Amino acid sequence: MTKAIVPGTFDPITVGHLDVIERASKIFDEVIVAVAASEIKNGTGPLFNVQERVELISTATKHFGGVSVKSFDNLLVVFAREENATVLVKGLRAITDFEHEFQMAALNWKLASALETFFIMASPANMFLSSSAVKEIARHGGSVTGLVPDCVETALREKYRSM
Amino acid sequence: MTKAIVPGTFDPITVGHLDVIERASKIFDEVIVAVAASEIKNGTGPLFNVQERVELISTATKHFGGVSVKSFDNLLVVFAREENATVLVKGLRAITDFEHEFQMAALNWKLASALETFFIMASPANMFLSSSAVKEIARHGGSVTGLVPDCVETALREKYRSM
Amino acid sequence: MTKAIVPGTFDPITVGHLDVIERASKIFDEVIVAVAASEIKNGTGPLFNVQERVELISTATKHFGGVSVKSFDNLLVVFAREENATVLVKGLRAITDFEHEFQMAALNWKLASALETFFIMASPANMFLSSSAVKEIARHGGSVTGLVPDCVETALREKYRSM
Amino acid sequence: MTKAIVPGTFDPITVGHLDVIERASKIFDEVIVAVAASEIKNGTGPLFNVQERVELISTATKHFGGVSVKSFDNLLVVFAREENATVLVKGLRAITDFEHEFQMAALNWKLASALETFFIMASPANMFLSSSAVKEIARHGGSVTGLVPDCVETALREKYRSM
Amino acid sequence: MTKAIVPGTFDPITVGHLDVIERASKIFDEVIVAVAASEIKNGTGPLFNVQERVELISTATKHFGGVSVKSFDNLLVVFAREENATVLVKGLRAITDFEHEFQMAALNWKLASALETFFIMASPANMFLSSSAVKEIARHGGSVTGLVPDCVETALREKYRSM
Amino acid sequence: MTKAIVPGTFDPITVGHLDVIERASKIFDEVIVAVAASEIKNGTGPLFNVQERVELISTATKHFGGVSVKSFDNLLVVFAREENATVLVKGLRAITDFEHEFQMAALNWKLASALETFFIMASPANMFLSSSAVKEIARHGGSVTGLVPDCVETALREKYRSM
Repeated sequence: MTKAIVPGTFDPITVGHLDVIERASKIFDEVIVAVAASEIKNGTGPLFNVQERVELISTATKHFGGVSVKSFDNLLVVFAREENATVLVKGLRAITDFEHEFQMAALNWKLASALETFFIMASPANMFLSSSAVKEIARHGGSVTGLVPDCVETALREKYRSM
Repeated sequence: MTKAIVPGTFDPITVGHLDVIERASKIFDEVIVAVAASEIKNGTGPLFNVQERVELISTATKHFGGVSVKSFDNLLVVFAREENATVLVKGLRAITDFEHEFQMAALNWKLASALETFFIMASPANMFLSSSAVKEIARHGGSVTGLVPDCVETALREKYRSM
Repeated sequence: MTKAIVPGTFDPITVGHLDVIERASKIFDEVIVAVAASEIKNGTGPLFNVQERVELISTATKHFGGVSVKSFDNLLVVFAREENATVLVKGLRAITDFEHEFQMAALNWKLASALETFFIMASPANMFLSSSAVKEIARHGGSVTGLVPDCVETALREKYRSM
Repeated sequence: MTKAIVPGTFDPITVGHLDVIERASKIFDEVIVAVAASEIKNGTGPLFNVQERVELISTATKHFGGVSVKSFDNLLVVFAREENATVLVKGLRAITDFEHEFQMAALNWKLASALETFFIMASPANMFLSSSAVKEIARHGGSVTGLVPDCVETALREKYRSM
Repeated sequence: MTKAIVPGTFDPITVGHLDVIERASKIFDEVIVAVAASEIKNGTGPLFNVQERVELISTATKHFGGVSVKSFDNLLVVFAREENATVLVKGLRAITDFEHEFQMAALNWKLASALETFFIMASPANMFLSSSAVKEIARHGGSVTGLVPDCVETALREKYRSM
Repeated sequence: MTKAIVPGTFDPITVGHLDVIERASKIFDEVIVAVAASEIKNGTGPLFNVQERVELISTATKHFGGVSVKSFDNLLVVFAREENATVLVKGLRAITDFEHEFQMAALNWKLASALETFFIMASPANMFLSSSAVKEIARHGGSVTGLVPDCVETALREKYRSM
């Protein structure tokens, strides 16, 4: 039985992330979506706290079989070992992704060589979709329909209305 | 009649930007330089406020025909629609640019498929010139002559003297 | 009045090429599809001779306004000057494209600085489509429906049946 | 039960290919190394014919569990369907690989959406190793020890001695 | 006599940096490791202050011949001129590096054309190693043995224990 | 005393190559331009035979100090060892170059770890110049003035006139 992890910040989850999770769930017996708790990028925190992100992903993936959602706050390789997962699945969108992900994979491999990273190509339609682009559009009141699951669309509207 | 937009942060405008604006003005009937009002990158605000940036660009482009300068504070596709512009013109310098710009173009195309993005290659001499490099040089008292228009050179000197 | 050229080998034309031609025809007054007569790549000639390629493109673009198809057998910048065209439009699919096209643009610019090259992003769905992939699929009897115009699909079937 | 295919030309197989095959065999129940029969690149045929390549790979992988070697001469997606395989595993070495492989994955996905492509990073030590580099070294009488399995080293020596 | 500079932030120095410094010291008569004093990236300061970084590098390089360590707080080209250095040596790890470094080299060349930049490839084993990855691992209590010199490993443990 | 090799096919030498050779000659005591004798690319031989290429480079570099020109027909690392050279200098133009050159450097390093490869950035004006582009222009009767040394311009005219 192979257990796979799909790690990320998911701030918030997009239809691109969902596509990767669904495709992973068709190949592997069990899939854990691992939500990085405290990723601070460029001096700013996430829009949704880790609890909100876990809930949104749980709602969006509840119709997939064999998928669970957990947060983690240590090294990914340590989390994977605790969960007895042997595979990481990462969606790739573009060149910049590729370099960063290769660096992460090489380091994870150095830290835990039994953990294999599989890269999966984003569907062409999602190739240029990102969480930060979604937030940029929503922040200006643009429509994100079709870019994120319904529950995220609602959550973005509430989040930006209250700001 | 085709109206084109050259969007950017322009903090400050360089001779690379000027080259793109001039070349666009030779092809399209009307060119609007669209200055993003509030772009915060990596947790820090721009060196020049949006009003200063609009004025510097206006000074530097006043001898081009058919070019106007405006700031915008909403989604670029919304601004383009309000201005009845059908074309975006973006200068490309390097690989990293390319990926980011493709992502933006794909999203803009999803949000407003009637808006076409044209990419134009930076002249080889400007291929590695950027606003942030210019600021880095000026901040250390180096000469930026030939990298920016005269009015920007003066403005940089005043800005850093007063810091 | 701006006349634009969309150059290429088009061996054969794909829906990705068609998309670029159509989008160019919406922006520019006149568009010439310029078919490189004798491009030999990697030691092998084209599958379709230049006359066949011109005819297939003419059939596939006949419902677009302001589009004509011509072959050329000299330097592209010379052909453009003869046609009084001031703009080249090139579709970009991927990183490798980008480097090669930049090299071409820089050289064309050196040879004829009045000729401007605009790059246009392939639609995400066509981002990974190429003439050589189409031929590979057709050669093995796979279906290319949706990847090429109908007339090309028929021509590929006849071409490979007769081999 | 998941059956995976590791496709390639393998002219000849290197320790980089072997590493990918071994890692795939640890994750998936069954792995088929699929050897492209007639790939002609840049106008020249392979150094080893398909029968020789199948035999070298069989020798080099005989101590792995669940790995078989087969040649194919049609579209990869057709071969995969005939073998009831649902996963392709491809080793990635560098940027150029990435673009080409993404194009192949996108086309395979268009032709057979049930076939999933997983990319696996080459080990850093093999990141820049290729079959063509190995042949270049062997052709000049250099040592390829450590770059290819022993049986390939012997085969290369015989091949170039007889030329 | 050729004097070379190996510039960087070195927050902290890794075995990848050390490899570049050692290889440079074998080619050039004198090597100065130039530590950028105040580089603020993405709104946050360095983990080790410039004095700590100079000391760690001095300890780690004390067995190399002809290597000295200095901090600088002005433009690199000015520092190089003051030191009578004619060569910059930069280690390259990956594509993103490449673009950024080319931009820097082009600007340095514009500012001081007598200063030559040589790029040196990171050893494959260090290709994906970075100071930020090292800090990420150490922050979570993971082992960085083999990724940094011993003195840095100790310093990281103390730094994070005291936080 | 450091002896450096600038290797290549040089079919023919361009001003971009000349720039790299001249810059290398300012740093290293002795520079050998190493001309690959028999490089066949994509099924076609070089335009100029190795003797012609050595003569053109000798003419073009005769005013540089400490530069000699030699052909070689074995592995570059073997040639370097025979010449007691410890450094390879390679000009980099673009991303594609980068990947290929890194692969070569890694292999050369594996074959002869005492041989160091230094990469040097092409001047921005030469960033997109290549021997194949030069031949393409000359073949169509275009002007290559400023792209190649005078002796090459003459040789190209004679070569293509006689075809």
